[in-house]
Amino acid sequence: MGTLVVTESELRTCLSIDKSALAAVERAFRWIAEGRVSMPPVMHITVDAESAVDTKGAFVDGIDHIAVKIATGFFRNPTIGLPSCSSIVALMNAKTGVFDCVFLDNGFLMDLRTGLAGAVAGKYLAPQNVHTVGVLGTGVQARYQIESLSLVRSFERLLVFGRNSTSVSKYCDEMAERLGIPVEPCATAEEMVRTVQTIVTTTPATKAVIPADWIHSGLHITAMGSDLPGKQELEAGVLDRADFIVCDVIDQCRIGGELQHVTVEHKRLHDLGSIIAGAQRFVRDPDAVTICDLTGTGAQDTAIAVEAYARVKAAGLGAML
Amino acid sequence: MGTLVVTESELRTCLSIDKSALAAVERAFRWIAEGRVSMPPVMHITVDAESAVDTKGAFVDGIDHIAVKIATGFFRNPTIGLPSCSSIVALMNAKTGVFDCVFLDNGFLMDLRTGLAGAVAGKYLAPQNVHTVGVLGTGVQARYQIESLSLVRSFERLLVFGRNSTSVSKYCDEMAERLGIPVEPCATAEEMVRTVQTIVTTTPATKAVIPADWIHSGLHITAMGSDLPGKQELEAGVLDRADFIVCDVIDQCRIGGELQHVTVEHKRLHDLGSIIAGAQRFVRDPDAVTICDLTGTGAQDTAIAVEAYARVKAAGLGAML
Repeated sequence: MGTLVVTESELRTCLSIDKSALAAVERAFRWIAEGRVSMPPVMHITVDAESAVDTKGAFVDGIDHIAVKIATGFFRNPTIGLPSCSSIVALMNAKTGVFDCVFLDNGFLMDLRTGLAGAVAGKYLAPQNVHTVGVLGTGVQARYQIESLSLVRSFERLLVFGRNSTSVSKYCDEMAERLGIPVEPCATAEEMVRTVQTIVTTTPATKAVIPADWIHSGLHITAMGSDLPGKQELEAGVLDRADFIVCDVIDQCRIGGELQHVTVEHKRLHDLGSIIAGAQRFVRDPDAVTICDLTGTGAQDTAIAVEAYARVKAAGLGAML
Repeated sequence: MGTLVVTESELRTCLSIDKSALAAVERAFRWIAEGRVSMPPVMHITVDAESAVDTKGAFVDGIDHIAVKIATGFFRNPTIGLPSCSSIVALMNAKTGVFDCVFLDNGFLMDLRTGLAGAVAGKYLAPQNVHTVGVLGTGVQARYQIESLSLVRSFERLLVFGRNSTSVSKYCDEMAERLGIPVEPCATAEEMVRTVQTIVTTTPATKAVIPADWIHSGLHITAMGSDLPGKQELEAGVLDRADFIVCDVIDQCRIGGELQHVTVEHKRLHDLGSIIAGAQRFVRDPDAVTICDLTGTGAQDTAIAVEAYARVKAAGLGAML
């Protein structure tokens, strides 16, 4: 017996933004659509206005392991040179409850599953031919989302808008190197939105950054920044303008996603898992406007942790304690 | 940086049923009474009718660490030779959210804090002179509760009632050795209740085991078996008969403790923390009947984890990963 303890650096040697990891996260949305996921509400411990501990978990019927993730967000940390977020993920045997593995992943698994969920959205909803992609924000997810998206669309140019020019410039350099394509800053968010065929929004904004009148036909938006009450990146009119709105979990998006700011009849809403499973047939009109609202789910945490465990075992990594 | 990972066997070398651990758990009840504890509801993941994962946590204002405990209860495990329960406890720095320590404790910290909470109840509520103690049940908590109680009362004899004679006999042998006093089985629960001055009930019963007419003056009962809706060890009349009813957390006892089966006016209820802090002056009449209803709190988990971390650090134990 014993528990395999795996560090972030060990995880990074065997797991990355790659096609099997993408397939793992895609499976999580199928599980939700198939009604196999038992997922309680997030356990939220408030420390102060800028610090909290959030715990998520999911049991998936038929899957060998259950994951519970404890994630910390302490947003004054950068002032003392520490990252804001960290996490650990515990993986329990679904038959016995035995703790088979603990990942000391420092947020890596969460960053990965969040970025890959954006790619799943892009795979099923973005136009087939995307020449230029736009990204709003220059943080960790601006990196994970776009690198993940490159697994499913071969775009030739990336435009970025952010408010801090140093961060924008650093982002451009890094991502140009990583993707091997031109990555260019935009002077305004409007210029970016009007130019591209697909956008990923990754900011912690609490007021809409993208108004409805910038939206053009053929545009897909993956909005992943808003995941809690009070957050917003898209003006309500953007959702009115959309031909097709897809959520990771509709009820959760109504609470914390872009949907919290607008009333949309249920028939205009679709869940990502049903699209993937083909339960709701979707063929994209090249001129349609599509939006995917992502808030993050415990099922994704379980999916990526199960994938990580398989790779760690295959590579003989971790310390058995 | 890094996270200190500590195993159950390492923990057992530096932490046990002792007076400083008792003081640590006693502090948890003071914290609650002082309004310093931020404790969300338990996060419950149902696996099936006999298996679940429960996560608890608490932030305590002014304490350096936050603990989150993930506990599994898989009650078919004994049929395949595995213990039913396991757990891990994560300890995060309350200023930065950094994961300073993960205890792979297999339920040891929970068993300890639960047993010691019973001793805190006994310390403040049991008669000063307890000659004979009774215990209902023969499981893990029947051991932890009584050994903990021996820190606060020097009783000379222990009576036990359980339904499985092999378990009773094993319990008597083990505890006589551990406590150095006679430990004797009772033929009936009634005989036990009528003979002793203090009882601890530790069963998972869902129907009352102790009726009101067995209760005699001068008796104290610590009822710790009932901690979830549907559980019950004491007939409702037992609580009516009590002069003084104390809870770890009143609202939680109304949901999962003995209080769920009876309507008691609020003025007859007291919380353990207020008694300890002296906010509610309590001098025990030797002839009074007292009851303490314990359901378990995240504050106790934080208290015992903080104590464990201090000892582990002092002893240089654990692996820094």
